[in-house]
Amino acid sequence: MTTQNPILKRIKKNEILEMENRFRANFINSISGFKSVGLIGTISKDNKTNLAIFSQVFHLGANPALMGFIIRPNTSARHTLENIEDTHFFTFNHIQEEFYKQAHQTSARYPREVSEFEATELTPYFENDFIAPYLKESHFRIGLKLEEKHNLTINNTIFLIASVQEVILNEEIIEKDGYIDIEKAGTITSSGLDSYHTTNKIERLPYAKP
Amino acid sequence: MTTQNPILKRIKKNEILEMENRFRANFINSISGFKSVGLIGTISKDNKTNLAIFSQVFHLGANPALMGFIIRPNTSARHTLENIEDTHFFTFNHIQEEFYKQAHQTSARYPREVSEFEATELTPYFENDFIAPYLKESHFRIGLKLEEKHNLTINNTIFLIASVQEVILNEEIIEKDGYIDIEKAGTITSSGLDSYHTTNKIERLPYAKP
Repeated sequence: MTTQNPILKRIKKNEILEMENRFRANFINSISGFKSVGLIGTISKDNKTNLAIFSQVFHLGANPALMGFIIRPNTSARHTLENIEDTHFFTFNHIQEEFYKQAHQTSARYPREVSEFEATELTPYFENDFIAPYLKESHFRIGLKLEEKHNLTINNTIFLIASVQEVILNEEIIEKDGYIDIEKAGTITSSGLDSYHTTNKIERLPYAKP
Repeated sequence: MTTQNPILKRIKKNEILEMENRFRANFINSISGFKSVGLIGTISKDNKTNLAIFSQVFHLGANPALMGFIIRPNTSARHTLENIEDTHFFTFNHIQEEFYKQAHQTSARYPREVSEFEATELTPYFENDFIAPYLKESHFRIGLKLEEKHNLTINNTIFLIASVQEVILNEEIIEKDGYIDIEKAGTITSSGLDSYHTTNKIERLPYAKP
């Protein structure tokens, strides 16, 4: 796929500012690279389940085990945010190719009374001592607890820090040194706002020394 | 690769806490999913170039165009952080399969006087009015300016917010609606601390409506 020596163009800030809004959203969402994408499962105070796709997700630290999430509160994500603030617990479920269309569909602006699980024909699953719903279809599920919420005033987004409570996965894909082969779990990645991709492992490399 | 119905195991917080440090680092670094990985190029006040691989990178917003970066200051990343704080400008260069081994090698703890560009035989490239070095080998390069620095006391990491100053890419991979086909640019993704993957596009999906 790669052209060996493509002619590169320099697109400067003023050109980005002048882009039509939707064009810029697609453009800028593409530049950060392939994304960690998954479905966040939550439950409201009155026991309504919610499922929403998120791709502003990242590893924050291993000890303590923490993940970070960016949420735009004025989007279909607002119910997810409210539920996390109310109940403090949520799940992050990797997406596999078998249900990526349903996963994407959770980004639609459903009214509060509609559970995206039902609307997209995905299945909530509860562990006996964890309040938030997992996604049964996912082969890789993480249970999380809200630790910190930061308002990012620069663009009115919310940065959540969550601690890892549990990981539910196929033990056979854990390698001897702790690395988990998420490609074997069927985990997919995304780019831009709407493109989904499977992966092909090139190689694991040894710890780098000078 | 995917097993249709694998038996899943629940690994709880206390088991994660009891993991050996390096095992836990590999394990927790794997769970967030495939990562946006790239090489950050910086220059010091005394004109020494630096290149370092980062995978705690994410889209923060499109309008204004912002990216987020998490940096652990006690690692090989510390020179990158110092340079960004001193000069305010840096570059983020996507990694292609042609140089992923060299990209990984930049994570070694080189002394300050060694430029990772030289040590890994990668080529710095300067645009005429941008202070930080780009990576010539990369077909997808972003110029950034530091906007905010937040200390995350929960795990002593640094969260940088940067604004997009320019994007240098092959214009032919920009689609009509602004989406950029980074797979065509040869951009790769990573998982865990040391695994590199190419991608295969499944599909772009239309904007989801209820």
